[in-house]
Amino acid sequence: MSVLNETARQLIESGAPAHFVTLGKGGSPQMSMVWVGLDGDEIVMAHLEEYQKVRNIRRDPRVALSIATGRLNAIGMEEHLIVYGTACITEGGAPELLQRLAFTYVGPDVVFPPMDDPPRGYLTRITPERVSGMGDWR
Amino acid sequence: MSVLNETARQLIESGAPAHFVTLGKGGSPQMSMVWVGLDGDEIVMAHLEEYQKVRNIRRDPRVALSIATGRLNAIGMEEHLIVYGTACITEGGAPELLQRLAFTYVGPDVVFPPMDDPPRGYLTRITPERVSGMGDWR
Repeated sequence: MSVLNETARQLIESGAPAHFVTLGKGGSPQMSMVWVGLDGDEIVMAHLEEYQKVRNIRRDPRVALSIATGRLNAIGMEEHLIVYGTACITEGGAPELLQRLAFTYVGPDVVFPPMDDPPRGYLTRITPERVSGMGDWR
Repeated sequence: MSVLNETARQLIESGAPAHFVTLGKGGSPQMSMVWVGLDGDEIVMAHLEEYQKVRNIRRDPRVALSIATGRLNAIGMEEHLIVYGTACITEGGAPELLQRLAFTYVGPDVVFPPMDDPPRGYLTRITPERVSGMGDWR
């Protein structure tokens, strides 16, 4: 059974950006903000180039991401979902996933990536192992 | 000279939540969403209890945080500031810093923390070393 309940799945597919952490050489945290979606029980993201985070995941698959909901609880703290998991990199498919995510993140008329003949790129596929944060995730 | 320019300083003091990363035992990333402010050139946050992130920083001071601005750029990507730095923990002062931050994060009439006689708690003080992300941070 996936560790993501329906509320968590809806947030991941809602078009809210994820703050994403990988581990750099030497173990330092590296962060970026990314578009995310679901493919079955995996969280997926796309990269047109072999960014540092792609190289980091190949070296150490431990990742985490945090997504804010925009909703405040009774004492003014914002609800958010944190997911810990193990990631892997696959080659190709980045333009197609970016276009699918752009419909949610940008709008129904967008063409993304905004270039002719984009590179095939890379996908990050995350198997969620544990959720945390503040909200109805369990 | 601080690595934070005036634009970065304004965002940190704006009441936008920070997605904060520390390193757990074994080096795994640990995330939480926190209120942040500035004290001189340091980024500060307050904790009423000795949370996991407090224990993590004592073991390994390498931290990172990411703050979204809510502004989209020309191709629909959201601007965000990422700060890498070294953190230390000091004891006490948490209720006072939380009250100061709550005026920005919640509103001018809030009493925070919402309890009588809160514990003295802990402060995280981060010396910023490098900025990244998407925006006018350099």
